[in-house]
Parts: sequence; structure tokens; C-alpha cells
Amino acid sequence: MEKIHYTLDNLDELFYESGLNSEQTARAKTIFLKRLSYDAHKFYNGKMQTVPKAAVFGFNWFNVWYTPGVSMVSTTIRDNNLESYALSNRGNLVAVVSDSTRVLGDGNCTPPGGLGVMEGKAFLMKYLGGVDANALCIDGRNEKGEHDPDKIIDFVKMLQPGFGAVNLEDISQPNCYKVLDTLREECDIPVWHDDAQGTASVTLAGLFNALKLVDKPISEVKIVLYGAGASNTTIARIIHQAGGDPEKMIIFDSSGSLNTDRDDIKADQRYYRKWELCLSTNPKKIRTMEEAMLGADVLIALSKSDPNTIKPQWIKSMAQKPVVFACANPVPEIYPYKAKEAGAYIVATGRGDFPNQVNNSLGFPGILKGALLVRSRKISDEMAIVAAKSLADFAEKRGIHPDNIIPTMEETGVFPCEAADVAMQAMKEDLARESLTRDEAYTLAENGIRESRDLVHMMLKENFIKTPPQEMLQSAFDWAVEQVK
Amino acid sequence: MEKIHYTLDNLDELFYESGLNSEQTARAKTIFLKRLSYDAHKFYNGKMQTVPKAAVFGFNWFNVWYTPGVSMVSTTIRDNNLESYALSNRGNLVAVVSDSTRVLGDGNCTPPGGLGVMEGKAFLMKYLGGVDANALCIDGRNEKGEHDPDKIIDFVKMLQPGFGAVNLEDISQPNCYKVLDTLREECDIPVWHDDAQGTASVTLAGLFNALKLVDKPISEVKIVLYGAGASNTTIARIIHQAGGDPEKMIIFDSSGSLNTDRDDIKADQRYYRKWELCLSTNPKKIRTMEEAMLGADVLIALSKSDPNTIKPQWIKSMAQKPVVFACANPVPEIYPYKAKEAGAYIVATGRGDFPNQVNNSLGFPGILKGALLVRSRKISDEMAIVAAKSLADFAEKRGIHPDNIIPTMEETGVFPCEAADVAMQAMKEDLARESLTRDEAYTLAENGIRESRDLVHMMLKENFIKTPPQEMLQSAFDWAVEQVK
Repeated sequence: MEKIHYTLDNLDELFYESGLNSEQTARAKTIFLKRLSYDAHKFYNGKMQTVPKAAVFGFNWFNVWYTPGVSMVSTTIRDNNLESYALSNRGNLVAVVSDSTRVLGDGNCTPPGGLGVMEGKAFLMKYLGGVDANALCIDGRNEKGEHDPDKIIDFVKMLQPGFGAVNLEDISQPNCYKVLDTLREECDIPVWHDDAQGTASVTLAGLFNALKLVDKPISEVKIVLYGAGASNTTIARIIHQAGGDPEKMIIFDSSGSLNTDRDDIKADQRYYRKWELCLSTNPKKIRTMEEAMLGADVLIALSKSDPNTIKPQWIKSMAQKPVVFACANPVPEIYPYKAKEAGAYIVATGRGDFPNQVNNSLGFPGILKGALLVRSRKISDEMAIVAAKSLADFAEKRGIHPDNIIPTMEETGVFPCEAADVAMQAMKEDLARESLTRDEAYTLAENGIRESRDLVHMMLKENFIKTPPQEMLQSAFDWAVEQVK
Repeated sequence: MEKIHYTLDNLDELFYESGLNSEQTARAKTIFLKRLSYDAHKFYNGKMQTVPKAAVFGFNWFNVWYTPGVSMVSTTIRDNNLESYALSNRGNLVAVVSDSTRVLGDGNCTPPGGLGVMEGKAFLMKYLGGVDANALCIDGRNEKGEHDPDKIIDFVKMLQPGFGAVNLEDISQPNCYKVLDTLREECDIPVWHDDAQGTASVTLAGLFNALKLVDKPISEVKIVLYGAGASNTTIARIIHQAGGDPEKMIIFDSSGSLNTDRDDIKADQRYYRKWELCLSTNPKKIRTMEEAMLGADVLIALSKSDPNTIKPQWIKSMAQKPVVFACANPVPEIYPYKAKEAGAYIVATGRGDFPNQVNNSLGFPGILKGALLVRSRKISDEMAIVAAKSLADFAEKRGIHPDNIIPTMEETGVFPCEAADVAMQAMKEDLARESLTRDEAYTLAENGIRESRDLVHMMLKENFIKTPPQEMLQSAFDWAVEQVK
């Protein structure tokens, strides 16, 4: 058998050679990636480190970088806190903060359980956006052992003097609403909830281009949102702000559709974001997915990591050229090949091994880089919508089709573009503390990103990052085949 | 005029050529270092960044490092939190936490004011100890605007699931006592207060060797401690634990000597650590420095950054072969040449540009590395004393004399040695969660440190770290000369 390429680009062939059918291959791929992930994390003991970015020409330089020289840095920042952006790494540094209560598809993973994801986020931020990030998985429980949003709020407020922005991540409902809304209001640096604004921005980018391909205006389409977590509720809000009609939206949570009869949501103050959607959407109070999907143009599912969640007959009942976003991680609510069989014209998922990956990684590195470049105080919803447009336009320019509605991470030109557009929007909204032209912002972002990547590649070449043994790949592969056969 | 070397090793000559005397040179050097520090920090925008330590062979690897693969890392850690040490960078990661209320010699610098120092700490940790660190300057004020130790305690407790150790830094008295003692008790990872245990460990190393040179046993010497902050009170405690006689110690704070008549200290619960010293030291209740210094063998000053703090006549009245530690930063309480003129046999300061630098940087990188290697739960006082012995013995083996009692940072062999000794002590005290032989610990530490340095040097060579312009050095020099002339 041929060897597994280190680029992992011949897995499909090898699974085929091993006699797996497409359903088995899809499952085996997930199993392979999980197993390889575990082994590779163990091999490297995690994936991020801290490294100097300033020169040392002998040990006398520690009198410059540390005492006594550093005193002038301390007193300068003391006298004008904004100098911290220029004199420390703060201006390029994001805190990725999670209480690990909703780690991707795996739910509550206990506080350290989110470290793999948060370090991954830091990895992506650096490699794609040239942004530094610290992964902070915190224990957000109070004395009663409850996950307490006020503890997270307090933690982030204490943290902010040393960071240029905060990326909240994988905080479960309903705490995430209060945490994000409070912090966005009360912090003086951007507080980004990637599961909410981040997913919404990238989903909106995909939706923009999908609607171009099916030639339907956003204000006219009927959209069913399946799942009403932080992501989908924010997607609904942002689609509305971007021109969608809330009266044409129907949103489902695990208890049914959102509508004004939902006294359970109304009664619980913590779900105020969901209640707003009960008021604004689904005026006819349609209650079942069967009814809701009849003639729907778009389905956006962000619900359960189970490929049998979305029923093919739902898709069969949609309007012509159905658009289906099945974005649960790690496994979509329906496999793309099944959705296509049921008549879907465009299918997007959260997975990089299928076409049309609605991938947060297309958003946050560029968006945060842009916000940092101009030392923005916030990241507004409008900035997230501008990022979506930037992504969509980038893809449209190089050509889109039903299996390619959105850029991939490999189209690295997208990130400086997005960063520059976001920076300009921050200035337009008077959120920026620093003024740049679009060209300056673009160039700064582009150089920062190129340097980050070049550094990683050079570290690999010079063996500062080791190459894992081929056997690690092979044993993960063999194990995956065994599991699905 | 000759150019300033990038190594900064010809400053004395150049100041001499510029016509400065030794007092002017000492002042000019500080001014030069401060000015260069400011300019260099601005040039680089701080000094630490985050960088991947794991390979990317194309973008498919983000399916390994992030979703869907990372799911297995999340669930594995969820099911056994200790796996976080192997599967994330936690096992090599220290949080450097400060509320910036006592930043080196500069007092309260407001929360972001400590960033220069904390990033410097992270720099030293990586370069000297091969340890990763995140600089976290936090706002520790409560709603009344008071610096609240409970807020820092809560912050660190929330933080600990993602870190292998915490390094508390530059927290003012009395808060530092409660913060450190509470966290050491209640956290399950080492909590190190570098201003306390760190300074004590390195000072003790210097004291061990100074006493060898003057041939006086530690149990017999009369020690005056000038200043009763976190550092000196911990030094007193640790000297006691290492065999010193508290009844032969006299400690001064800004209101006079510590003794059982000090009702002001007794009345304030927050100063319990100082009250313990009122009870155990200075039984004769000597009240003035003049009396205390009569016949004293050792003076350890950690008080005010002012070269006129220690009076030469005090030193003149000491016993034969006086040992003087004048360790305020950035400027010692007396310049070494003046202390020598007054008869001091051995003078140590906190400064790297004078002989005998009592430099915390000799301690924390090796001590934290050692604690991390065996995943220690704590760093005990005994571990700090073992580190002091390790440092002192290392220096003794290569030869000591009055102007060379302690290793310098340039003797890089000291760090793996110290790390290995500290790791062994953690195992001995049953604080370790991982078992290693001394050889294994030494090799792991040595390799980690070598790789860190090689990486920095390679980044310089390959221009990932730029070389600052010669004019930056020259203008700082010219400015310094101008200021003192």
C-alpha cells in the first residue's frame, strides 16, 4: 500500500483501497483524525509555545529587557496606559478564554478539557492571522459548583489591561449571552465570542454567495434555523441586520420552534436573546420541522453532532435549489452526499474534508487582526458583517459554484483583505484608537501573516519542530479502518 | 569615537572617553539602559510572541490540530484531567501574574504598567529555563477601587486548570502575604512569589558563599536586614530555616526595627508575617541602625532605590570582613565602590553591571523548570533552599572570591543543574506527580534550554528578529552623557 502523505491528501484513495464505501470512509476519516490528533498532541505535548520577538546580543541585554532598563517602560505606561500597545506585545495579543462548558461538539469537558481547542485557536490565529494568543481555560464555577457567568465576566475584566482583545470560546448557554453582552458593553477592548459573532460572520459569507448562485435576494428567502444555541441565535440576528426578514425565519431549539407562545423561554431572564427571537420570528407560530421546511429556501442547522439529525424528507420538501448548512462539529447533522441525494443544491458543513466548509477559521484570524491593527475598542456586528462581505467578495472574484461558495483557509490572501476591511469599518464607526489607510492595514496584516508562516516553516526545516514518525500516521489509519469495517 | 558594541560590553570605556567619572558613569549607565530599553521596546512592540511548536504539513493538519480531530484530546482530558500535562503545553507553561502595584523599584504602575517587567520575566524564563510563560497584568481593584487580595486569589484559582505553575510578581505589601499563602495552600499547582521565595533563594545562595569566604558559620552571624517587604521578610524566614539564628537578626522597616513593642504591626492582621518576625528576632529590642550595625557580620538591604540609603559609617562599624547586600532595584542602596571605601569585604547588588549580582533570574527559570519537569504540586521553602545550595555549590566548584560569590546568568550550566536538584527535592517531599531520575531531569532541562536559545539565535540570524539600528544605541548613549554632565 502507498504511504500516507504527510499532507494527508491521499486518505480517500487509501480508504478506498482498504475496501471502505463512502459512508465508512466518512466515519473512518473522523476516527483517523481523532486518533492522529491524540497521538500528535502527545508527541509534541501540545502545540503552542512562547518565544522572544526581540534580540539578545549577549546577556547585557537583559539589563535592557529587564531591570534596570525596563523601568522606563513601566513608568511610561503608568503615565499613559495607551503606550502599552506600543511598548508591549499587547497590541497583537488576544486572550482566548473558555470555561470549557461547551467544547466544540463535546459539551462540558471540565476546565482543562478545552485546552486542545484553545491552543488550536491560538495556532490558527498565528498561522492565519499573524496574531498572538494565550489559551486560557478557566474554572468558572462558584462556591456552589455552578458555572457562574459573573465569574467569567470578572475574570475577563481583570485580564483586559494586558490584552488587545479577548476571544470568548465554547461557553455554554445561557451563560454565554450574559458574559458576551456584559463584556462587550463594559470592556474597553474588543470581546469576541467566536461561537456567536464568528460563526455568524462566516455563515453569512457562505449565505451571501449561496444566494447569489440560486439567485434569490436575502430579503425574500425563507430560512429555517435548526438549533438555537449561541451560534444560530446570533446568525439569526446578523442575517436580520444584513437584510434578512425575521418574519420569514423559523428557529427551532430542542423543545420546538421559537414563537411567542414559548413561556418557558419568556420565564427565564437568562434567555433574553432567545426571547427576542421568539418575538421577531415565526409570526405564524409554525411548530414542526415538517411544516417549517415546506418551501423553505435555506436550512441552517447548528444543533447535534449526529449525521441522522436532519431527515432527507425535510430537504425534499424545500423550495427549488435548496441551500443546506449542516454545521455541527465534529459530525454534520446530515452527510453532504445524503443531503445531495435528497435534492440539496448547495451543502455546506463545518468540516474541512467536505466541500464548502463554513469554518470559523476564515473569520477570527482576519477579524481580530483588523481590530488589533487600529486598536479598536469593540468589534461591532457591523464589523462582522463587513468581514462576511469581504470573504464573500473574495470568493466571488475568483469564481464560485455550488461546491465552492466560500474561500478555504488555503486561500491565504483572504486574511489581510478581511483584516483591512474590518480595520476600515472600525475607523468608520469611530471605534479605532489608531488611524491607518486601507493599504497600510493590508500591508501590515500581510507582512505579519507571512512572517508567522515563514517562521513555522523555517522551524520545521531546521528541526525546531520535529516531524512525527510515519508509523504514527499509519497506526491511526489502521485503527480507523478496523473500527468501521 | 568607537562604536557601541551590540553586546553593550564597551560602555565603561566609552563613558570614560566621554569624560565621565565613576559616579557619573554609574548614573549614566542606568540612564542609558532605561532609554535604550524604551526605544528597543518601541522598536519591537514588546518582546514576547506565541509560536506553534507542532508541525503543519499543509492545511489538512488543521483537521488534526483543531476540529474534528482535537475532539479526542478534549474528551481524553475531560476523563482524566492529568492528561492535560501531556496533551497541551500546560506542562511547560507558567502564568506570570501581577497587579502591577509594586513594579520593581517603581511602585504602583497601574495594571498595564507591569507589562514590560512581566514580558521580561517570560523572556528570561524561556531563554534561561526553556519554560513558556504568559505575562498577565491584571486589574486587582474591587468596586471601591482598593487593591483587593481576594480578587487576585480568585483570578489565579480560576486560571490554574491551564497552567503548570503560577509566578506571582510585584504585588505590594501587605496583599502579597495573603495572596501567596492562600494560593500556596489552596492551589494544586506551584504558586511562586518571585519577590519573596525567588529573591530569598538567590540571596541565600550568595550568603552561603559569602560566609564561606569570610569563614563564618551561618548559625553564628549577626545579620541586619534593612527593609521588611515581601523579599526581606521571606529572606529572614528562609535564612532561619537554613540554619540562621533569628535571635541574631535585626530587621528594619520604615518605622524602625521589628520587635515585640511594635503594636502597629501586631494590630494589623494583614501583617501577620511581619509580626511573626517581631516575635522571633531582635530580642534585645535594638531600635536604631547605628546600634544594630555595631559588630554586625551581614547587612541585607532591600529597601529604597536610592544610593544614599545606606550610610558608609554604618558599614564602618560592622565586624571584620563585612558582607553587604544592597539589592534595591534599579539603583542599590549604596554604590558598591562607596561600600568598599567604607570597608565592605563583599558587596552584592541587584545590578548586572556590578559584580555579585543577586539576580532572581538565577533562580526562577531553573526552579520553575524543575517543578514543571516532575509536575510538582507545590514549591516548598525547602525546594527554594535546595536551589540556593545548588547555585552556591555550582559557583564554589568553579571557584569563588569576594567579587564573584555567585554564578552569573552567562554560566548557563547552572540552570539544568538547579532544575534537576529542585525536581529531586520535589520527589523527596512527595510533591511530584511524575517520577524522574536526576539524570533524566538534567537532560530534559538541558535540552529544553538549549533549544530555546538556539531558536532565538536562529531567528536573529534568519531575520525573524530584526537587528535594531546602531543609531538607537548611539542616541541613548549621547542622551545619557548629556544628562549626567
